[in-house]
Amino acid sequence: MIEPRLRPLVASDRAAVERIIAAVAVFSPEEIDIALELVDEWLEIGEESGYLTYVIEETAGTGKGTVRGFVCFGPTPLTEGTYDLYWVAVDPAAQGRGYGQRLLAFAESEVRGLGGRLLLIETASHEAYAATVRFYERAGYELVSRIPNFYRAGDDKLTFAKDVTG
Amino acid sequence: MIEPRLRPLVASDRAAVERIIAAVAVFSPEEIDIALELVDEWLEIGEESGYLTYVIEETAGTGKGTVRGFVCFGPTPLTEGTYDLYWVAVDPAAQGRGYGQRLLAFAESEVRGLGGRLLLIETASHEAYAATVRFYERAGYELVSRIPNFYRAGDDKLTFAKDVTG
Repeated sequence: MIEPRLRPLVASDRAAVERIIAAVAVFSPEEIDIALELVDEWLEIGEESGYLTYVIEETAGTGKGTVRGFVCFGPTPLTEGTYDLYWVAVDPAAQGRGYGQRLLAFAESEVRGLGGRLLLIETASHEAYAATVRFYERAGYELVSRIPNFYRAGDDKLTFAKDVTG
Repeated sequence: MIEPRLRPLVASDRAAVERIIAAVAVFSPEEIDIALELVDEWLEIGEESGYLTYVIEETAGTGKGTVRGFVCFGPTPLTEGTYDLYWVAVDPAAQGRGYGQRLLAFAESEVRGLGGRLLLIETASHEAYAATVRFYERAGYELVSRIPNFYRAGDDKLTFAKDVTG
């Protein structure tokens, strides 16, 4: 296997993204729909959409590529230099290879290159997301906000932040 | 003057809303554009837009009405029973008459009627919004989150919340 590479998502990757999101198995049908809407806006109008979307792809010796994860991020409306990380997901069959951290580091580097300073990630306090929370903490994100009972009674909205200028 | 009344915003109110937002003078051109986009979605598809928009109107003895303020709120995507208060604004020429509190109380009552439980309001920590913050606190909203440097360095995002089921 050739070293996996990151590249912008193209239309032929859409099915892979849909498959990965479904395989991750923590997202609701409504969340999957929203993820695909962002992907479609990116495919339609690119950076103007505000949803910059990249994939990580493994390439076999034959040259055939397999998309193993994706990341989607973009400028937060009404802010100067703040960005949201909307999605990062890795195929469960390819986890443990550091792809999630690579996708995250790539997004941070892009945000910095675009003049951004702060990258935010929202997630739920529900235990299904406990591994996700540890993943963000390992990547240097800090919990900056908790809104109690946001998603439903007992399920809070957590916001993690990282200063990407350092 | 007949007692002011609350009613759904209709197309002929759009200019009044634009005038009020401009008169309030704390909003940027980008924020004004976003407010009018929400109004336009409400005018186009109503409740399906997710932006329920109502005005408060004074009526003279002659029957002629003057829109003095508006409120826009709707269900927060991916949540069960959480609503966002997107906008509430009152014509500076009609402030001190309790219209802001009436618009807010109306939104809370509507949210409760729609089965909602939590109403959230986001604002900035910038001193231009100090009176706004006091307005929310007087109405029983509690500061539940502060994201440092969200809008720009030194300007935080504040989120206020109220349980509307009580």
